Amino acid sequence: MKRHNFSAGPSILPGSVLQKASEAVINFDNGLSLLEISHRSKPFVDVMENARSLALELLGLEGKGYKALFLQGGASTQFFMVALNMLEKRAGYLNTGTWSDKAIKEAKIYDDVYEVASSKDANYNYIPKGFDIPADYDYFHCTSNNTIFGTQMKEFPNSPIPMICDMSSDIFSRKLDFSKFDLIYAGAQKNMGPAGTTLVIVKEDILGKVSRKIPSMMDYKVQISKGSMFNTPPVFAVYTSMLTLEWLKDLGGIAAIEKENDKKAQLIYSEIDLNPLFKGFSAKPDRSTMNATFTLANEDLKETFETMVKEAGINGLNGHRSVGGYRASMYNALPLDSVGVLVDVMSELERKA
Amino acid sequence: MKRHNFSAGPSILPGSVLQKASEAVINFDNGLSLLEISHRSKPFVDVMENARSLALELLGLEGKGYKALFLQGGASTQFFMVALNMLEKRAGYLNTGTWSDKAIKEAKIYDDVYEVASSKDANYNYIPKGFDIPADYDYFHCTSNNTIFGTQMKEFPNSPIPMICDMSSDIFSRKLDFSKFDLIYAGAQKNMGPAGTTLVIVKEDILGKVSRKIPSMMDYKVQISKGSMFNTPPVFAVYTSMLTLEWLKDLGGIAAIEKENDKKAQLIYSEIDLNPLFKGFSAKPDRSTMNATFTLANEDLKETFETMVKEAGINGLNGHRSVGGYRASMYNALPLDSVGVLVDVMSELERKA
Repeated sequence: MKRHNFSAGPSILPGSVLQKASEAVINFDNGLSLLEISHRSKPFVDVMENARSLALELLGLEGKGYKALFLQGGASTQFFMVALNMLEKRAGYLNTGTWSDKAIKEAKIYDDVYEVASSKDANYNYIPKGFDIPADYDYFHCTSNNTIFGTQMKEFPNSPIPMICDMSSDIFSRKLDFSKFDLIYAGAQKNMGPAGTTLVIVKEDILGKVSRKIPSMMDYKVQISKGSMFNTPPVFAVYTSMLTLEWLKDLGGIAAIEKENDKKAQLIYSEIDLNPLFKGFSAKPDRSTMNATFTLANEDLKETFETMVKEAGINGLNGHRSVGGYRASMYNALPLDSVGVLVDVMSELERKA
Repeated sequence: MKRHNFSAGPSILPGSVLQKASEAVINFDNGLSLLEISHRSKPFVDVMENARSLALELLGLEGKGYKALFLQGGASTQFFMVALNMLEKRAGYLNTGTWSDKAIKEAKIYDDVYEVASSKDANYNYIPKGFDIPADYDYFHCTSNNTIFGTQMKEFPNSPIPMICDMSSDIFSRKLDFSKFDLIYAGAQKNMGPAGTTLVIVKEDILGKVSRKIPSMMDYKVQISKGSMFNTPPVFAVYTSMLTLEWLKDLGGIAAIEKENDKKAQLIYSEIDLNPLFKGFSAKPDRSTMNATFTLANEDLKETFETMVKEAGINGLNGHRSVGGYRASMYNALPLDSVGVLVDVMSELERKA
């Protein structure tokens, strides 16, 4: 049976990418596995350079003073690494959910953090707007997409200070003026590759302004000077990310995938709005194209619905415990067809009920 | 042509492990790839738990107050993470080479570091002995095997303070009383798996004694409380490490592999000692069973030797620039046959010359 993978992350990757990654584990360079060659060998150095330049190219940031790094430790490591490299006195954070909240907590270890706005009052079902960013702070931090709550920032402020964004769950999914941001980070395991590497895009001129000592591994400047190879990089995760970025480029880049993502989002949200058995969780203007969150209007239908979902081959639809209900994660590699199958199940439930 | 892979790391892995890892990239759980399922799903939680308990079992540390963690960032991250978690006033480090030196440098960020002994005077070609470890320091740190120089600690001191050891390049290769150590760390990419995860074995009762605030990701206590899943772990690297640990267990564990490793080391070192064309780099009593370092007595033979090496299908024999010459890395998965092929080439050169 064909599986339809709505996992929130780690999540679906393109079939052709999985095929090539699987082959490289056996034979990548003249009979040797990708896993057993030196990361300083030309074949792997080429992979790393290609991955870094594809990331900048796809975001339209080539030649604009940005560097791309493939690091380790996930966005959770960036939560404190950003502050370690950038927080001297005070930073402003927009709190749009669990991940923003964790970023704030980790930054507070290093110095003062001020929440410019928060949607905690409504269990983060919307994105706060119209807030001020103090011009004398070190930086402003926001989270572009909130997987757990299914909200997404549609517009970004004109920040008077460096703007840093956690784009873990929607990077490479939609056109944005990425040059508005001074530092972007994203764990690979949604739109870019397998868990185990984190993309960091950073404008070099914002670095080197804090007075504290920074461990080499955590110092963006050191990582830049070593081309992401200060130590042995996570070769498999970087290679598979490179394959995924190549797949996206071949498809037509972000402009092309955005159209697909919009179709998928439109399909699921129309069903949520038209089908009286379901209620959307997030505020309409802030609905995420990546993660649609919804609940059953009548909990008595839970068992029936979940059996139907299972029988349709749908995987990973359970909502996060903070919201309950369901979450359809529709990352770049999820085909429109899979959303069609889910919507059919939802309509079928309405007919049955 | 069969390849003989003497790479210093990332390095050779067992063929059966590569086969299973490759298959899991396509199909791990009912048609879904290992890379696209939730790390909180039962199949992956089982992998993580199995990997952690195999590590403790193979080291003979079960039920002795130790925890095993699979983290990210390599040994280079442990260099500062150890100090961040353990260094309150002063620590003692044994300096046996490049990696010890880096560990010292990173620890100094947090507080005072004292070198209990160093072999820098002889380009680290031996292991210092008979040094004192001050009883009032926070911990003592050493490096069990020095890949670059081809030296290995054969005995470990009875440390009056917690003993921490970087075993990146010889963990799981020889029987030791691992309970002498309070914290052991090792990047996976030599004897355990692919680059991208780091094994940390820590005795819980040494933690929680420093006054500084520690970022969650860098806090061993937090990682222990979350069973290595504070955030999304590097699933592929952990799974492949688990497969390698299973392979080692099936082979008879550390006792069995130690016999093989001793045979390989004996074979190469006898050739180095008997063949007048080669000179060993490291002091005989401290020779590593993992990395044999040697140079040509007569540099004029360089081209001939290297052509013969290439024609024999030998890969990764280049020495590190700090030592020059050659380095035969003979990690657990390298067959005795491969060492035989190298030794044949070395003898053949003698006959020819």
